[in-house]
Amino acid sequence: MFSSAAPKFIRSCGVQAWKHHHRCFPNVSVLASPKCSVHHESSGRESCNNSQARKAVHVAAAVGTACLLGASLYWKAQYDRHEAAEFSQEGGKFRTGLPTYTLAEVAQHKTKETRIWVTYKNGVYDITDYVTSHPGGTKILLAAGGPMEPYWNLYGVHKHPGIIKIAEKYRIGNITERPPAESVSVNDPYGSEPARNPVLIPSSKKPFNAEPPALLLVDSFLTPNELFYVRNHLPVPQVNLKTYTLDVEGPKKVLKFTYDDLIKLPKKSVAAVVQCAGNRRSDMVDIKPVKGLNWGAAAIGNAEWSGVRLSDLLKQCGVNLDTTTKKHLVFEGMDKGPEGSVYGASIPIELAKSLKDEIILAYEMNGKQIPRDHGYPVRVIIPGVVGARQVKWLNKIYLSDEESECHWQRRDYKGFNSSIDWHNVDFDSSVAIMQLPVVSAICDPPAGTELEEGSEDVTVRGYAWSGGGRGIIRVDVSADGGKTWHTAELQPNGQTPYRAWAWTLWEATVPLPEGHVGPVELVCKAVDVSYNVQPDGVEGVWNLRGVLNNAWHRVTVTVPPPS
Amino acid sequence: MFSSAAPKFIRSCGVQAWKHHHRCFPNVSVLASPKCSVHHESSGRESCNNSQARKAVHVAAAVGTACLLGASLYWKAQYDRHEAAEFSQEGGKFRTGLPTYTLAEVAQHKTKETRIWVTYKNGVYDITDYVTSHPGGTKILLAAGGPMEPYWNLYGVHKHPGIIKIAEKYRIGNITERPPAESVSVNDPYGSEPARNPVLIPSSKKPFNAEPPALLLVDSFLTPNELFYVRNHLPVPQVNLKTYTLDVEGPKKVLKFTYDDLIKLPKKSVAAVVQCAGNRRSDMVDIKPVKGLNWGAAAIGNAEWSGVRLSDLLKQCGVNLDTTTKKHLVFEGMDKGPEGSVYGASIPIELAKSLKDEIILAYEMNGKQIPRDHGYPVRVIIPGVVGARQVKWLNKIYLSDEESECHWQRRDYKGFNSSIDWHNVDFDSSVAIMQLPVVSAICDPPAGTELEEGSEDVTVRGYAWSGGGRGIIRVDVSADGGKTWHTAELQPNGQTPYRAWAWTLWEATVPLPEGHVGPVELVCKAVDVSYNVQPDGVEGVWNLRGVLNNAWHRVTVTVPPPS
Repeated sequence: MFSSAAPKFIRSCGVQAWKHHHRCFPNVSVLASPKCSVHHESSGRESCNNSQARKAVHVAAAVGTACLLGASLYWKAQYDRHEAAEFSQEGGKFRTGLPTYTLAEVAQHKTKETRIWVTYKNGVYDITDYVTSHPGGTKILLAAGGPMEPYWNLYGVHKHPGIIKIAEKYRIGNITERPPAESVSVNDPYGSEPARNPVLIPSSKKPFNAEPPALLLVDSFLTPNELFYVRNHLPVPQVNLKTYTLDVEGPKKVLKFTYDDLIKLPKKSVAAVVQCAGNRRSDMVDIKPVKGLNWGAAAIGNAEWSGVRLSDLLKQCGVNLDTTTKKHLVFEGMDKGPEGSVYGASIPIELAKSLKDEIILAYEMNGKQIPRDHGYPVRVIIPGVVGARQVKWLNKIYLSDEESECHWQRRDYKGFNSSIDWHNVDFDSSVAIMQLPVVSAICDPPAGTELEEGSEDVTVRGYAWSGGGRGIIRVDVSADGGKTWHTAELQPNGQTPYRAWAWTLWEATVPLPEGHVGPVELVCKAVDVSYNVQPDGVEGVWNLRGVLNNAWHRVTVTVPPPS
Repeated sequence: MFSSAAPKFIRSCGVQAWKHHHRCFPNVSVLASPKCSVHHESSGRESCNNSQARKAVHVAAAVGTACLLGASLYWKAQYDRHEAAEFSQEGGKFRTGLPTYTLAEVAQHKTKETRIWVTYKNGVYDITDYVTSHPGGTKILLAAGGPMEPYWNLYGVHKHPGIIKIAEKYRIGNITERPPAESVSVNDPYGSEPARNPVLIPSSKKPFNAEPPALLLVDSFLTPNELFYVRNHLPVPQVNLKTYTLDVEGPKKVLKFTYDDLIKLPKKSVAAVVQCAGNRRSDMVDIKPVKGLNWGAAAIGNAEWSGVRLSDLLKQCGVNLDTTTKKHLVFEGMDKGPEGSVYGASIPIELAKSLKDEIILAYEMNGKQIPRDHGYPVRVIIPGVVGARQVKWLNKIYLSDEESECHWQRRDYKGFNSSIDWHNVDFDSSVAIMQLPVVSAICDPPAGTELEEGSEDVTVRGYAWSGGGRGIIRVDVSADGGKTWHTAELQPNGQTPYRAWAWTLWEATVPLPEGHVGPVELVCKAVDVSYNVQPDGVEGVWNLRGVLNNAWHRVTVTVPPPS
């Protein structure tokens, strides 16, 4: 049963490795992981593409253990505002008489075998013996080897003086150093990037691209803004709201809408997924190398977007989508490459026609002003379509007989079969990705989780979604690698099956064979209302750019032998 | 290159087995195939479900051989009408001094090893040494073991006196018997069925269900009416055009449209696929038994349907699809079960809304009055949707808060995962199939084809289609079981990618490894504009009713060793 949209403390437990977390964890794993290389991509961005490190940690962490069941201490007491303030002043202070450690040393301690260390301010804590008691279950391990602050900021319940008292029982030392502040050159085009939640796991820093730990995605139907994956192709532009205009070009006139113009127009909201074409790319790397950011399964999010209907603006400019003879609807952003060209995209006019009242120019994300990383002040939301076409920092809309000439429209974000590689690719021979195929992923438990000793079943949670508004009608979950299947319970998303822009969260408790010990391969696959299914294997959908991986999602966890 | 929509004589050649042909070939294989059993299905129909016989023949025929290349005699001469008339009188007459054979004996001769025999009227011919010279290539083998009439009727070029002269050179005997006329009881609800083209291969006779040899599907973009697969759930009703009405129920009035009323309204045409949910079911049987007609890959066809827009009729009845609060659009046919209930179906109102001007009440199929087997005088065409909802012999349309209560809406034509079988199925837990997923199939060469000795490549042709109007953007073809892929050439279907109701025919010439001898596993898979792909294996989509098989299509052919 799904209890609510609020974070739900889960029953599955264990010490885990998260592919993405350990790949490039901010402030921690980046320092600890010497294999996190910076390489040049086709689009000229830096990225962390470190599947070896990912695998190593995956294996190492799988041997850790922790268990919450029956040992919960849940901090339900009302707390005093004064104490809370004091807590933030007192917790984690330097304590004399304890050894000091470097951040790199702390980062070596992520599993039960190495002991699990975390930091809070100047304090170093060995929480190995606490994790089984943690009311939030597995989530505590997201901080293993690094700072607890990002998570304590995310889950306000920790801002209680009692928490730090518990933590201090596990105090083992101090850190004296602080992570070096990144020096910013005045000439750096990335010199004015917005602040980001350190929980996000970057796959590249310039431009900034990051996803949250997938485990956090299933906590709520709407993905919090600060946890929503970020996909930037260029530096985040600085936009002055007072001078900002959105130019909409009609056949006879160009109208310039100011921000104030836009917010005075009728407001429409839609809960819709935005997903990167490269979501789950990291699974493709195991087949054959691909070019692209090494996304895990969390380059996707579901938000409520609010703004103005595109059709309302087009009408004002004399554009009738139903009768226009133009072939493409083109969008341009304000994010500029070094040579001055802007990011742009287009969608075929037939697609625009089928969606016309559903395309919105969003200035709010989950009821708040849209954050800079997500397109402040305005981005276009084209429900059911790949993120790459939902242009952020939107500056201009026009109709054309040609599709956008942008690199990412014509020379990227296209699919090919697995026999096409860089020596024989012809980007003109393929079609720009628009609506995305049906996909699903297991978010909980994460790969490498060690289940409770003697587990008789495993509760599996995840998301499912399909492009084009095709609602999810079934998710199948297997705990034996795909031999037998269990139908998951779907959380209703309140949308009709043919206009289902939001995702469907799901949950299934799947029995394990009696007395099972050892690895358990969890698999999920979804079916949309058009009975489209996910392909079985990654091999069949492998492509040189690593996009469109919607193969069955597989995650291996373990039942430990009796102790 | 695709030359035209007209039948094209193909370069690939060989002696072949057709799963369906040999399963229950009319007048021939039914007699010859003792394993063609009649069994009772869930819906109470008779059917031929004979995968053992199919496999046996498949294997046997694969060892045959024939080759056309370089030996073509194409009958291009103008012919004299008088001679043609004479031909039909003179050809195939009883010839004294020759042995006589039974039809069952003829039916034993289908491969090179057994010699290939065919009949024409009273004549028996051994065409083994002719097949390599046949201008129509492999198609001649469709008649192996049986009568040539169905094919000569289909391809009028054979109605030339020169043809029978050639045939008589291969004359080896006479048949004296004729297939027994089926006795018809006056009480038989199937006593007034229409005549059918004997080329169709029945999977059940009462009700009549049949598909053409898949090889014939790729001859033309529009499937000829007489070759279009037939899927009847009940006896074909006898409809009197003079008294026929189509009743359309609005909120305040019911309008009864006569046939004359309908044909006076504006006429709209659409080229659209109709596909049975059970198309390609026979491939599922190999995994685990399923209930249903044992369809091959030809329970699909593409026709131009002409008729009246549903939205035009609804308007007259005061129904506005955009504003109605009703949830389903219900259709009822005139075909009745023994207990008097009629065939019916419904579609969700959201689907009707998205399609409203595209749903037509068709009275023409490929420019001719719609044949009785396909719904004379009127059937509803709901483009992109499974055949089962496109009610034939349409009698009534109304809106409802409930979906159709018809058995085939609620207790059939739904998908389940492969761990659901008859002991644990709950039909209420699944969703009625509407729009179908992306599918493709290899039609040419048929399974079992022996390619030319020393073949360096193989030309593969087939169809691809996706429900919901999602156009086909790519078809991949492999000649090594799916290790390497070649992108097929797509025949444009003239429709936009988001309103592509028709199929896409495709062709690829795929190289074989140098000097290859032995089996060649051909595979195809299609991608639609939403980048939905076909699943790799049948196992993953297996379901108890054997519907929705859209796995990669696999066909094995052979390159013979050097002679």
